[in-house]
Amino acid sequence: MSSSYKQPPHKLTMIPGPIEFSDEVLGAMATPSQAHTSPEFVATFQSVLKNLRKLFKSEDAEAQPYVLAGSGTLGWDVASANLVSPGDKVLVLSTGFFSDSFAECLKVYGADVDVVTAEVGDVVPLKTITDKLKSEKYSAITITHVDTSTSVVSDVKAISEIVKKESPETLIIVDGVCSIGVEDLEFDKWGVDFALTASQKAIGVPAGLSIFFASGRAVAKALARKESTFFASLKRWTPIMKAYESGNGAYFATPAVQTITALKVSLDQILAETLDQRFAKHEQVSSQFKSSVEKLGLKILPVNHEVAAHGLTAVYLPEGVAAPDLLGALSKKGFTVAGGIHKALVGKYFRVGHMGFSVYEGHVDKLTAALQESLTELGHK
Amino acid sequence: MSSSYKQPPHKLTMIPGPIEFSDEVLGAMATPSQAHTSPEFVATFQSVLKNLRKLFKSEDAEAQPYVLAGSGTLGWDVASANLVSPGDKVLVLSTGFFSDSFAECLKVYGADVDVVTAEVGDVVPLKTITDKLKSEKYSAITITHVDTSTSVVSDVKAISEIVKKESPETLIIVDGVCSIGVEDLEFDKWGVDFALTASQKAIGVPAGLSIFFASGRAVAKALARKESTFFASLKRWTPIMKAYESGNGAYFATPAVQTITALKVSLDQILAETLDQRFAKHEQVSSQFKSSVEKLGLKILPVNHEVAAHGLTAVYLPEGVAAPDLLGALSKKGFTVAGGIHKALVGKYFRVGHMGFSVYEGHVDKLTAALQESLTELGHK
Repeated sequence: MSSSYKQPPHKLTMIPGPIEFSDEVLGAMATPSQAHTSPEFVATFQSVLKNLRKLFKSEDAEAQPYVLAGSGTLGWDVASANLVSPGDKVLVLSTGFFSDSFAECLKVYGADVDVVTAEVGDVVPLKTITDKLKSEKYSAITITHVDTSTSVVSDVKAISEIVKKESPETLIIVDGVCSIGVEDLEFDKWGVDFALTASQKAIGVPAGLSIFFASGRAVAKALARKESTFFASLKRWTPIMKAYESGNGAYFATPAVQTITALKVSLDQILAETLDQRFAKHEQVSSQFKSSVEKLGLKILPVNHEVAAHGLTAVYLPEGVAAPDLLGALSKKGFTVAGGIHKALVGKYFRVGHMGFSVYEGHVDKLTAALQESLTELGHK
Repeated sequence: MSSSYKQPPHKLTMIPGPIEFSDEVLGAMATPSQAHTSPEFVATFQSVLKNLRKLFKSEDAEAQPYVLAGSGTLGWDVASANLVSPGDKVLVLSTGFFSDSFAECLKVYGADVDVVTAEVGDVVPLKTITDKLKSEKYSAITITHVDTSTSVVSDVKAISEIVKKESPETLIIVDGVCSIGVEDLEFDKWGVDFALTASQKAIGVPAGLSIFFASGRAVAKALARKESTFFASLKRWTPIMKAYESGNGAYFATPAVQTITALKVSLDQILAETLDQRFAKHEQVSSQFKSSVEKLGLKILPVNHEVAAHGLTAVYLPEGVAAPDLLGALSKKGFTVAGGIHKALVGKYFRVGHMGFSVYEGHVDKLTAALQESLTELGHK
């Protein structure tokens, strides 16, 4: 498609993903058919894989980026089926619904899972993590960088330091679905072994891609073990990704040509500034939104700003305002925001996504005004 | 995106998938962001699921259509992980590379697999199938309707009749990746239990969707067993698909919103004529292409026209013409066709896809002329 594509006016999707997409990214979704092994597509996929190394801040040649047709959830299968063997102890740090779902996935593949659950709106105390690692030998630990259900951000750097000190052989697995591209993640420096995300989040591409990054030791572990999955097998995918990155087509399962082409466009746009500039921009817009929300007399779900994510905000509804009414009022004004999904708090809060394109396009200011108007209409003072 | 999108001139992708797409389908890929549970997307997904029942010619309310972000290969995992238990005997009828790969997938999930391999270019004799079913109790049989590596079409109707007679409790699993939408498949009438395909084949949508259909007894079997996969679990997906089809959003993993929107457009286009008209159109164009190829003195890979598929043609290279030279010459003239991938015959044949949009747009005639010219240039008389 020509780069001149302009999307028509539409309701702005400001949930914590799928997010709004740039015209160029959406235009690339309509790229005419290319064979998955054509020179044109091989060049696209090669660029994507090389740029993912930059996105994950990794320069380790032993580490490996992967892009599969699928969703973020598939990344949990990849981690569970390739890095953990039945009976292995896994420590899951839970900051909400998605952390718990990852634990469920691990259990399906036979892991012996210990879930440590944070207070609602808070993170798991570092002391608790230290104690757990001292008391038991874990094959892996999972950290949900940002749990999309609570908007709580975990301190991956600090947790990784503890793991490296107390139990260096434990694999560090990070669910970065709602963080990669908006929160800093230093894959090599922090010693992360596996980090997963999905296209429709801060990476700014339509849903349909499972994107993940594995350390050299994670890849080695996966290649050495007996397969317990076919489509999600790193044994199958590793040579394919290496081939594409070196400029050669290869086949295991057909890649999502158009969505990967859109991913190329989005990564080019993301990397046009430094990642640190991008994180700072998100932090600024996020802080401003949270401050506006608090000025309206509302309370955010995270217990303090330190543990509040920058790509989304979860907000308690004020007295007398029901979620469907607020979501309906915002929808009439042209915005889609999300309800709450934490089991303990369903119907008590709502969530606003502010990632990627919307942050740069000024959508958040517009939404803030619409939120204020909607609350007034609904009787909130 | 507006329905007025016109794709720019480009090299025509005439491999056995991904195929060329209509302007309307590609335009839908650029649909602005929608939440996966928005009323707009719920209506789209509902239409898709209802129309898939028509595509699979099923009116059985107990049967269930599914659309997952993934590729055709994921459908093998779904079948293997949900319908077969470790140790179960499975009979695989092999007509090429993809049949054998399906067998590999089944083995990863612990199936005890018997592969019966047809002569190259031929199908497995019905007598052999009858004998196997009499000699052993199989939990399931897999039939690759069209093996994309050989362009051989299996007679699913006749095989199903044998299964129903000799071993009615055996689940009939059909890999329809290169057949659904181009070859007739009567899901209910023939008693098929599971049929899988992918978006980028005859369904005419960019790659990124695993599409499959399960019978009531297949669904019941999947729901009753212990999960051995998370992302590919029918236990997880069945309630989600039922919700969307009844007009309600639901969440397990984020659906590929834009690609599913494109699937809606494509299914609307496909169902604008009767399926039987569509199959007849493909048969006519396919026969004409095969006849043209034979007039050029070339030989098709299938042993006769009876076992030759209608969505693609595999052709032996003539003496003195190398595959890279022919593919290169066709590429210069604006066509991408595929090399051969059957292990025994690599470098000895090439494959041309003629499915869906290309069949209706007259692409096959243009390719036929280009093929003739290219062969002449390469010294073939």
